[in-house]
Amino acid sequence: MNLYTSKTEAVAKKAFEAAGNGDYETVVHLIDHSFNTEDCDEKGNSLLHYAVLGKNQKLVKYLVERCKMDPAWANQSMCTPYDLAAGTPLEDYIKGVCGFSLGECYRNPVLRGMHPDPSIVRVGEDYYMVNSSFVIFPCIPISHSKDLVHWKTIGYAVTDEKWAKKYLGNLESGRGFWAPDISYHNGRFYICATLRNNDDAPFIQTQMVTSSDEPAGPYGTPVIHNVLGIDPSIFTDDDGKRYMLVNRGARIMEISEDGTKLLSLPELIWYGHSGHAPEGPHLLKKDGYYYCFLAEGGTGKGHMISVARSRKLYGPYENCPYNPIMHQWDEMGAIQCCGHGKPVETPDGRWFMVYLCSRFIDGTWGMTGRETCLDEITWTLDGWPLVNGRKGPSYMAPVPFPEKSGKVISRIGQSVWFTPRTRDITRVRTGEDGILWIRGDGLDLCSRQCQSLLIQFQPDFGFYAEFEMWIPGEETNEFTSDAGMTLYYDENTYIKFGVTKNLVFVTEYVNNAYVRTKSMKFDFQGRVLFGVETDGLNRTFLLNNEILWRWTDVTSICSEGLTKGKRFTGAAYGVYVNGSNLLCWRQHSKI
Amino acid sequence: MNLYTSKTEAVAKKAFEAAGNGDYETVVHLIDHSFNTEDCDEKGNSLLHYAVLGKNQKLVKYLVERCKMDPAWANQSMCTPYDLAAGTPLEDYIKGVCGFSLGECYRNPVLRGMHPDPSIVRVGEDYYMVNSSFVIFPCIPISHSKDLVHWKTIGYAVTDEKWAKKYLGNLESGRGFWAPDISYHNGRFYICATLRNNDDAPFIQTQMVTSSDEPAGPYGTPVIHNVLGIDPSIFTDDDGKRYMLVNRGARIMEISEDGTKLLSLPELIWYGHSGHAPEGPHLLKKDGYYYCFLAEGGTGKGHMISVARSRKLYGPYENCPYNPIMHQWDEMGAIQCCGHGKPVETPDGRWFMVYLCSRFIDGTWGMTGRETCLDEITWTLDGWPLVNGRKGPSYMAPVPFPEKSGKVISRIGQSVWFTPRTRDITRVRTGEDGILWIRGDGLDLCSRQCQSLLIQFQPDFGFYAEFEMWIPGEETNEFTSDAGMTLYYDENTYIKFGVTKNLVFVTEYVNNAYVRTKSMKFDFQGRVLFGVETDGLNRTFLLNNEILWRWTDVTSICSEGLTKGKRFTGAAYGVYVNGSNLLCWRQHSKI
Repeated sequence: MNLYTSKTEAVAKKAFEAAGNGDYETVVHLIDHSFNTEDCDEKGNSLLHYAVLGKNQKLVKYLVERCKMDPAWANQSMCTPYDLAAGTPLEDYIKGVCGFSLGECYRNPVLRGMHPDPSIVRVGEDYYMVNSSFVIFPCIPISHSKDLVHWKTIGYAVTDEKWAKKYLGNLESGRGFWAPDISYHNGRFYICATLRNNDDAPFIQTQMVTSSDEPAGPYGTPVIHNVLGIDPSIFTDDDGKRYMLVNRGARIMEISEDGTKLLSLPELIWYGHSGHAPEGPHLLKKDGYYYCFLAEGGTGKGHMISVARSRKLYGPYENCPYNPIMHQWDEMGAIQCCGHGKPVETPDGRWFMVYLCSRFIDGTWGMTGRETCLDEITWTLDGWPLVNGRKGPSYMAPVPFPEKSGKVISRIGQSVWFTPRTRDITRVRTGEDGILWIRGDGLDLCSRQCQSLLIQFQPDFGFYAEFEMWIPGEETNEFTSDAGMTLYYDENTYIKFGVTKNLVFVTEYVNNAYVRTKSMKFDFQGRVLFGVETDGLNRTFLLNNEILWRWTDVTSICSEGLTKGKRFTGAAYGVYVNGSNLLCWRQHSKI
Repeated sequence: MNLYTSKTEAVAKKAFEAAGNGDYETVVHLIDHSFNTEDCDEKGNSLLHYAVLGKNQKLVKYLVERCKMDPAWANQSMCTPYDLAAGTPLEDYIKGVCGFSLGECYRNPVLRGMHPDPSIVRVGEDYYMVNSSFVIFPCIPISHSKDLVHWKTIGYAVTDEKWAKKYLGNLESGRGFWAPDISYHNGRFYICATLRNNDDAPFIQTQMVTSSDEPAGPYGTPVIHNVLGIDPSIFTDDDGKRYMLVNRGARIMEISEDGTKLLSLPELIWYGHSGHAPEGPHLLKKDGYYYCFLAEGGTGKGHMISVARSRKLYGPYENCPYNPIMHQWDEMGAIQCCGHGKPVETPDGRWFMVYLCSRFIDGTWGMTGRETCLDEITWTLDGWPLVNGRKGPSYMAPVPFPEKSGKVISRIGQSVWFTPRTRDITRVRTGEDGILWIRGDGLDLCSRQCQSLLIQFQPDFGFYAEFEMWIPGEETNEFTSDAGMTLYYDENTYIKFGVTKNLVFVTEYVNNAYVRTKSMKFDFQGRVLFGVETDGLNRTFLLNNEILWRWTDVTSICSEGLTKGKRFTGAAYGVYVNGSNLLCWRQHSKI
């Protein structure tokens, strides 16, 4: 879809108005002569959105059957014409067109909030996924699902604070663990990832491998291979030989069975379809072919997934004539930047792809970072995989396992609290009772060494978070810190909403300075209630249930909010201490 | 390909230099870590162009086999790595990769200079094509070929000056005959086209039908149908019923066998793949399916060809999952704006598509207007047609009929001289001896009524044209005109290079005024030799073999040179008279 490409904008608006009024004749005349059906309004509403609201069944059928308009295409608020038809006589008609009911579908992204670079493996009826974590500790979340739609984080590839301190402790934000892969071999789970060091390191890109008998871990001490490249994945051939792939393009090297030794140098087998930043290589053996999948075009709006195949592991590889097999061609699509995926087969022989995407506020601000989508793969008669029939990402699709999905109440989010780089468990811990404890280390959040915060990633563009904060009884130091909630991207950009002994304030740090601050007198008696309402780029700050300030244009905690370093993560929220006091928090239930 | 998308421009230049030096190690290292193989330089030279010049066969093989770089990809001067390999040991290797020799290939566009909106039909072993002519007379050229590559204009659909005067005489440039179609039925050739009138006409879009027993004509007096839409084509179903299709989308109406009567109102059967300006509908029946082809995206850089099919004429139609089946995805491709095509089957069951394209000087100036390309269609196992394997337009491809193409010496260009709208044969004529005669009508070229010129379209971006001009013996009027050569787009933009009685001058008309002029004293004795050398946006003006002036930035006679009216044609050159004298010209052979 596109914004006003018809002969004039007035033509488009006239068509929308007529559709909203159920005026069949006018709409058909405009389509015949001057209206492009790809047009949508500023909020992403298509002609079909309007027509469903207009309730003219003949017009809706015309748009769907003659003009091939998609009832499952979402506007910028992720609302589809199908959603608008709910409870009206049109719902049954659209159900017939789509082939699934509103209750039997899932919505993309299936994993919202920061979940980039997904990799997946199936063992029996269980699916396991890993995502990038950069400098966030614990590192590399492992998620589990029975139905590919509902996921729960079950563990982390790296949980050793000392190891993390040594390897991540000095890294700039955006470095750390990039694009992990999870695979399964002879009863053991293998996770590999790029450990991306600072640019002044001897090896800026290294490859980490760890393994465990249990998907949730604990995983063994990581082995580091000093091989340049990113996005490693492990492939086991039919003869039992094991290989690691790294970018650029797909370069493969033989590895020992346990992944701890490299047995050959990387050799390029396929450089991709476009020649633009080919990465994320994954190999799959199927029906006598080696299928090589790549992410291409960079992780922005040119992102895509491509595939090639060969009868021989080392090629030559044949480009799929239908490349890219996943790409968001639709400039007004609410889901953008689709690429970097891995296929997985279900026990009954169907195939799905998990892949990353971005969503943008006002078309610009990727607040939640990159997220994870799911779409079905179909195979052409000539043996090529297409993701969602080459239509780009789906907004609604039938659940893969209706019999399983019904048993899961809701999507389960993150429950672990993160710190950057590592955790000093003598100062920072989370109790089983849900209480968060931080004794400050005297550093403010702008210090790369500061770990006096506990955060989770924004679950979506809109939510409310509330924390009760108090000074615990055992704290004997005088309160000389500032402490409270933080809206956090990294050490270069964050917001603090906190109290000192006699002030409450909100302040925004960008690049190397606090750039806007509001404060007022407040007598901190040792217990207080913070609330922040997030709505796109707006934030409302509440103290003890009273609205203190409203901020708009909170763009600094988006990936696009600053050009400095690698901004590959997403916005988080949580609690912090700046100073040396001990404080406790309990998060109240979300509204 | 793209301009410098690698990590830095310096990386790209280093790779080009290393490839030019045959430095395998450096090039491979850069590809592994920082160079995108899609990068080309400002002139469109790819890494493979450089590598072929560097003569390192191992490097060339690496780029072709591992990186899938295309030896037949053209730079901005239409030169491919294969061309650069000619006469070197690499020629044989690349021949093996491409599957054709340099002598057995054709180059796109096959018809250069203004040839937009091609439609094609085969009768026996003969192929006939028509192209749009707008207000140019004679109207709608009919070209003939035996091999799909070499074409010769054999006639015109409308040659009646009086008819043309009545229907085209008052049209603004860019109106007139749009997007014709040629078809064959029961021994008779049918040509239909939109006759696009001025915006203040009662019917701004009408559909013209004419027919003839002979492909070259003469064709009967056109019948005009007052049906809104553009891009008509005629389809005959197996049951003998005949249909006309018009845009937007594919709308069909039943017509009488001779096309002179409409038997139903237009009904939409398919609106296209993208919803953006669907036009140029063509139907094809094959293997029990109705295949509906559309041009979409507008005739600019978003142009494309899409297809859908149905078992029933009136649908519902199923979108091809591989749409668009022809599109130029490559931003640096020397051939752009590919779309609006029609398929044709060869006697031995192969399929080809003729379609339009544009080429641009400096990426911006479409001097020659839209031209015609040819590419093979292959059918997928699930029965969908792909043009050139979905790789976009080819620059080099094997000739369809090697046994025939060898017999044709060269591409045969236009030989007819055109006038805008109609011709007053009492004043303007071309002799069999090649002599052009014009008696001026007192009007300058900026008048829509002026027909005191004879033009042909630029055959390419570079050529030399030379005309000897003289006052014939029978002319008794004193010479009070200006006359000479013109470089002509339409009445809004043209250049005159002419003489008066005592001056030689060159002057450029843009919009409503002469905007730049050079002149010098010259004593016109009744005979003079004009020459104009065309090189992209540069023109060199010669009088009696002496260079008088050189102009650069001659952009006004491009389609993009002015925003006024419909600029759908291309640059032409020829001769003119402004005044009332009679003059003669003979064109000298081109260098």
